[in-house]
Amino acid sequence: MRVFIAGIDGYLGWPLALHLADRGHEVGGCDLMLRRKWVREMGSHSAIPIVSMPARVAAFAERFGRELDFRKGDLRNFEFVSKALRDFRPDAVVQLGEMPSAPYSMVDAAHASFTQINNVIGSLNLLFAIREHAPKAHILKLGTMGEYGTPNVDIPEGFFELEFRGRRDRLPFPRQAGSWYHWSKVHGSNNTMFACRIWGLRATDVMQGVVFGTRLPAQGDDARLRTRLDFDQAFGTAINRFCCQAVIGHPLTPFGKGHQKRGFLPLRESIECFTLALENPPAEGEYRVFNQFAEVCDITELAVKVCAAAQDLGLDAEIRNVENPRLELEEHYYNPDHRNLFDLGYKPSLDIDGEIRTMLSDLVPQRRRILAKEHVLLPDVRWDGRRTRVKYLDGTRTTARAAE
Amino acid sequence: MRVFIAGIDGYLGWPLALHLADRGHEVGGCDLMLRRKWVREMGSHSAIPIVSMPARVAAFAERFGRELDFRKGDLRNFEFVSKALRDFRPDAVVQLGEMPSAPYSMVDAAHASFTQINNVIGSLNLLFAIREHAPKAHILKLGTMGEYGTPNVDIPEGFFELEFRGRRDRLPFPRQAGSWYHWSKVHGSNNTMFACRIWGLRATDVMQGVVFGTRLPAQGDDARLRTRLDFDQAFGTAINRFCCQAVIGHPLTPFGKGHQKRGFLPLRESIECFTLALENPPAEGEYRVFNQFAEVCDITELAVKVCAAAQDLGLDAEIRNVENPRLELEEHYYNPDHRNLFDLGYKPSLDIDGEIRTMLSDLVPQRRRILAKEHVLLPDVRWDGRRTRVKYLDGTRTTARAAE
Repeated sequence: MRVFIAGIDGYLGWPLALHLADRGHEVGGCDLMLRRKWVREMGSHSAIPIVSMPARVAAFAERFGRELDFRKGDLRNFEFVSKALRDFRPDAVVQLGEMPSAPYSMVDAAHASFTQINNVIGSLNLLFAIREHAPKAHILKLGTMGEYGTPNVDIPEGFFELEFRGRRDRLPFPRQAGSWYHWSKVHGSNNTMFACRIWGLRATDVMQGVVFGTRLPAQGDDARLRTRLDFDQAFGTAINRFCCQAVIGHPLTPFGKGHQKRGFLPLRESIECFTLALENPPAEGEYRVFNQFAEVCDITELAVKVCAAAQDLGLDAEIRNVENPRLELEEHYYNPDHRNLFDLGYKPSLDIDGEIRTMLSDLVPQRRRILAKEHVLLPDVRWDGRRTRVKYLDGTRTTARAAE
Repeated sequence: MRVFIAGIDGYLGWPLALHLADRGHEVGGCDLMLRRKWVREMGSHSAIPIVSMPARVAAFAERFGRELDFRKGDLRNFEFVSKALRDFRPDAVVQLGEMPSAPYSMVDAAHASFTQINNVIGSLNLLFAIREHAPKAHILKLGTMGEYGTPNVDIPEGFFELEFRGRRDRLPFPRQAGSWYHWSKVHGSNNTMFACRIWGLRATDVMQGVVFGTRLPAQGDDARLRTRLDFDQAFGTAINRFCCQAVIGHPLTPFGKGHQKRGFLPLRESIECFTLALENPPAEGEYRVFNQFAEVCDITELAVKVCAAAQDLGLDAEIRNVENPRLELEEHYYNPDHRNLFDLGYKPSLDIDGEIRTMLSDLVPQRRRILAKEHVLLPDVRWDGRRTRVKYLDGTRTTARAAE
């Protein structure tokens, strides 16, 4: 299968390229290298050192004995997107080329606009280019479980049977996203659903949970093949940030009461799920939605797991809740379905503790890199528009020992 | 009340400015004059001749004895939007500055992107500027009934009580828009709802039906105060196009089977409804949705009404259905609520026939202007991506007499 990955330089894009190549697929992709720039803008860098894209491409060729078809370019530029797909002739296109951070989108008007234009127009250009040059190609678009928000009812996978005033229909499940970024994903989901309806394209829209992890098998031992790992307020996700905090003895910092529930999955399972979707494409004209996560966890439970694993490694970790910079429910009902990927054969390992231990082992050697950017660990981008660093909440100190 | 109208040069923006001034409100606004350009791009012009914006501003000052605070500028430019609201200090902002045509958005990738950027980012910039400079101001955003599509259940006003697997919540009603334009409106509605939630802004989101009509009382007898009336495939809406067709003896052309049902309302009632919403603002933090239309009609019934009214004026009108350039249901259930505006005092006249007669009288003197652009009456922008003019469907000829 010929798979084109938009955003191939990213946290998920790069390991997906490796995994697909490892399974014998032809891989190409594009990137504008913006993720590296955004993380610098947030005053940070990847905890795991990564090499330049030319060096990645060279290491890819050594590892797999064939070239990676990489093009640097901007998804907002239709001519670029159109030429890339015309040349590459993909069987599948994976859209990982969106700006993936809620806090980054909340910085100010310019960041909000950039996020929505980049994400919505990038995906729209891919849809038009697919229609023109690869109308049978499967588009796998990365969405987020955050598109649904936290309704007080179960969350189905994309669609639900509604009975309303005595009549019935199957409709898209209502979305209640929680940031300009999350809404950009909703906008893109809606556009993708529409393109399938009017042009008969086929799409998988992945509502993904929070991904964590530092490695996957396909990267082997070549350090040039490792993927990035961010810990700043914008691009570091929950468990990844907790692990980086634990490694340098910084308190782990759940937001507010800390009982937000989210779906989580390890990096290697995220990549496995994408691959399952790609190797089992939808029918022509079909728009399907996968809720992609291994299990639902409470943020504080996860912090406690990281604390305990850190202690096993002799690290002294503690949990201290901070003010919540976001506007979100901190205690709520949460019960999303996730059957579709199981039906394709996805079996979550459910070994979060093991994954956390691997992460901590990978991150301990990077302690100095994390310490150098310790100031990025406490957020200051707030949902109400202020930009002031969050304070610790009193009486929420939990040491690793107490947590056990 | 100080009301700032974005898109003040448009079909609705201009008469709203007149009506509000007539009621003693202070009016300001902005426009980039793009509507005039888009209609030229579609090869057409307004059936009713309109004067330049400076001439409009001069006529406004003569009529009302005070200046209209007009600024030419681009809503996509945050600095422009921010300065305009900082200077004007509005109590209310009306967002009529979006690109309003479904077919225009369906021309190609460039038109789709332009539509979504212009509409989504323009509104986003208004939200940020309001937060910064007029956080108590009420934003009245123009959406469309087309955001809902045509579900097989009743359509509530924005939100509904959902019971799902034994649990309950009040959620946004699912949207199923039918063009890149309609989706741009959904994206904007979602963004507006979110801004109210996180920043406590107040908004009325108007899901408006199809507007028709050539005049409203506040324009008086000054020809410089008249609003535009389009009849091309992109910017001419159903009844307006039918009336222009009838005036030059061109067949009235419902799409496909012609039994699409939509909500309709006369221009002057659209302006009255906006005014009711403005004079009865929502509470701080409230995001409310109004389904704004007088009644639901079947497109063919409307064509028959126009035929009959044309015949009364001695015009020889006939109906001939054409291929449907859109992808939409041509026979479907349609039962949207529209209580909220009635609760504020809106009383639809329900005199569509009278309104059509007025329109025809206004348009007969413009016969030559319409004839000069007769070639724009049959659409060629198709939802499947082709650009080929629609053909007449056989056996669908209905003369005015037969229609009676």
